[in-house]
Amino acid sequence: MSITAPAGFRAAGTAAGLKSSGKPDVAVVVNDGPLQHAAAVFTSNRVAAAPVHWSRQVVSDGRVDAVVLNSGGANACTGAVGFQNTHATAEYTAEALQISSGDVFICSTGLIGEQLPMDKLLPGVSDAIAQLSTAGGQGAAEAIMTTDSVPKNARHPASADAPSEGYSIGGMAKGAGMLAPGLATMLVVLTTDAVLDPAQLTTALRAATRLTFDRTDSDGCMSTNDTVVLLASGASGVTPDLQEFEGALTGVCHSLAQQLIKDAEGASHDIAITAVNAASEQDAETVCRSVARSNLFKTAIFGNDPNWGRVLAAVGTTDAAFEPDQLNVSMNGVQICRDGGIGDSRDLVDLTGRDVTVEIDLNAGTETATIWTNDLTHEYVHENSAYSS
Amino acid sequence: MSITAPAGFRAAGTAAGLKSSGKPDVAVVVNDGPLQHAAAVFTSNRVAAAPVHWSRQVVSDGRVDAVVLNSGGANACTGAVGFQNTHATAEYTAEALQISSGDVFICSTGLIGEQLPMDKLLPGVSDAIAQLSTAGGQGAAEAIMTTDSVPKNARHPASADAPSEGYSIGGMAKGAGMLAPGLATMLVVLTTDAVLDPAQLTTALRAATRLTFDRTDSDGCMSTNDTVVLLASGASGVTPDLQEFEGALTGVCHSLAQQLIKDAEGASHDIAITAVNAASEQDAETVCRSVARSNLFKTAIFGNDPNWGRVLAAVGTTDAAFEPDQLNVSMNGVQICRDGGIGDSRDLVDLTGRDVTVEIDLNAGTETATIWTNDLTHEYVHENSAYSS
Repeated sequence: MSITAPAGFRAAGTAAGLKSSGKPDVAVVVNDGPLQHAAAVFTSNRVAAAPVHWSRQVVSDGRVDAVVLNSGGANACTGAVGFQNTHATAEYTAEALQISSGDVFICSTGLIGEQLPMDKLLPGVSDAIAQLSTAGGQGAAEAIMTTDSVPKNARHPASADAPSEGYSIGGMAKGAGMLAPGLATMLVVLTTDAVLDPAQLTTALRAATRLTFDRTDSDGCMSTNDTVVLLASGASGVTPDLQEFEGALTGVCHSLAQQLIKDAEGASHDIAITAVNAASEQDAETVCRSVARSNLFKTAIFGNDPNWGRVLAAVGTTDAAFEPDQLNVSMNGVQICRDGGIGDSRDLVDLTGRDVTVEIDLNAGTETATIWTNDLTHEYVHENSAYSS
Repeated sequence: MSITAPAGFRAAGTAAGLKSSGKPDVAVVVNDGPLQHAAAVFTSNRVAAAPVHWSRQVVSDGRVDAVVLNSGGANACTGAVGFQNTHATAEYTAEALQISSGDVFICSTGLIGEQLPMDKLLPGVSDAIAQLSTAGGQGAAEAIMTTDSVPKNARHPASADAPSEGYSIGGMAKGAGMLAPGLATMLVVLTTDAVLDPAQLTTALRAATRLTFDRTDSDGCMSTNDTVVLLASGASGVTPDLQEFEGALTGVCHSLAQQLIKDAEGASHDIAITAVNAASEQDAETVCRSVARSNLFKTAIFGNDPNWGRVLAAVGTTDAAFEPDQLNVSMNGVQICRDGGIGDSRDLVDLTGRDVTVEIDLNAGTETATIWTNDLTHEYVHENSAYSS
């Protein structure tokens, strides 16, 4: 009951046999309108999967009628045959739903460099379409899981009973950087019954993803398939204040992003790295991302070691505005580095819990940003070395 | 017999008690001339250790008489007290050797954010000076080890009996990105008895490090203490052809860099990533470095998985000139990705050996570059999480 929480949407998930485990692997989401407005953001990886190339084209006119998602195969680096397979999936879905194939958005996740078994995928699409229902959100969320241990859903308002502005937003997500297989592909479908045009949806979606998914950096690796798509049915008849809608959408995206970080199976710590007093928001983000991508920092946190030297070493590789002797670093509230040197005792920092906060004071301005990441663990190495993905 | 292979140098190593293990931890190298010419390159980390700040100043006039190196403490992020400690070490050494403290170059490696125990360090310097000898190179190389399993030495010509141009080059090194503790600090001392002025030494050193140490990227983390210093005594009386000297120096640096990669204790594979047919050397280097820093690629190699999809995903994040459907990737000679898609069978690739070669054909020009790295293993996580460093 999440992507189908807003009025105007049906969804379903089914097991088509793409996964050797026999678990659900095909999902279909349909926007019954009255509007079929849409916006999307995609991976900026230049080696993009066939469904990314296809769906970029589909959403370019601001209209999406249906989304087909499969796990069990990324359809990336699969050449002309891979693109034809995506095209064929759209044609097949369009015929079954009596819509235009140019309005069928496709997402895939799984191993790169292998062709999808179309003899299994297309019957799976038929099966999912036959099961489409306004209660099918949960089934769809389950069908897009790879090594996710739980499906990820979010909605606004937070529950059906909560006070509402007359419209709602739903969302589902899969993946996270720590998760093999699938090269960390993140797929997100967001739905709303608000009345908004494609340009408004694009503005709101870019604002929401910039502060949520874009700042979730589990292992620094960018997928060939990352996709976030937002569908608006207009079925509530309510035209929201755009800024209010942007805030609500950001909340839903934040919830999904946090669920991704928390379900990173290989991780033993969820780390929020915040830079404060930066000269610019970009500086703050750069500094946090540099620390989030330091394997030495990430292994230290795994070892419950409040190693601020590794934080400073990572900060020092950036071009952000700061003076090395004016840097302060706190972990879980203890200021262990002061003025670029030794601060309070490391022994005061307790890193045994799952949540870790790192605050870096750049003393160079007034801007701030946070990046969410995980630690680097034995399980990460195991998951990403033991299974081809 | 490596840094003391060229005429005009004495060296020694001793155990001062900086390391709790009681192993050697202080080394002194003296250039007896007749020339005391020098050049150096340092970490570009903006959070640089006290000895880096000091030694940058020392070498700025092209003269270095002695180098003092310690393991067991990085003296980084140690504020004014840390800088005073470096200064005091130089003063102490200068007085003992009857030279100027402004000509004493200092290097440190070990934990960031702790003060050096000067009551142990200075007696250690005295002890090393008392033991200085023209056969002391090996002892010095041992004293700078942290978790290195073997000391690293190199020389040109390759042996004392080999044909020579009348001068020689020696070198010692410690560290590597996979090695905790010490935040991967790389310290390198190079010596030569050739007659060269500081400007010539600088030119040769920059050319040599650019193609060797700068292209060794074990875990993407940059130390606060990395230092490479080249000392010339002029004792051979031979003025070499500069280009020939540059080639010989590059050979010595290449040997030391390969020894660093091969001794990365956490690693189970040594990986040479080469980009060919790039539009520029910079493009080739960028592409190789992006792959070398992909944790998903590095864990795949640890798992003996020739996962070319993860190579392409890393290439796709760069701004190098290429078309995704014109990329070829070979591992250990098997072209597993052709024209951006599926090539020869992955099963043909044997990754059970320690050495792995990855060749990425960008089909965009004629330039090439190689980056040397390691895989990401359980031992890496263990070493960097179990010990504070």
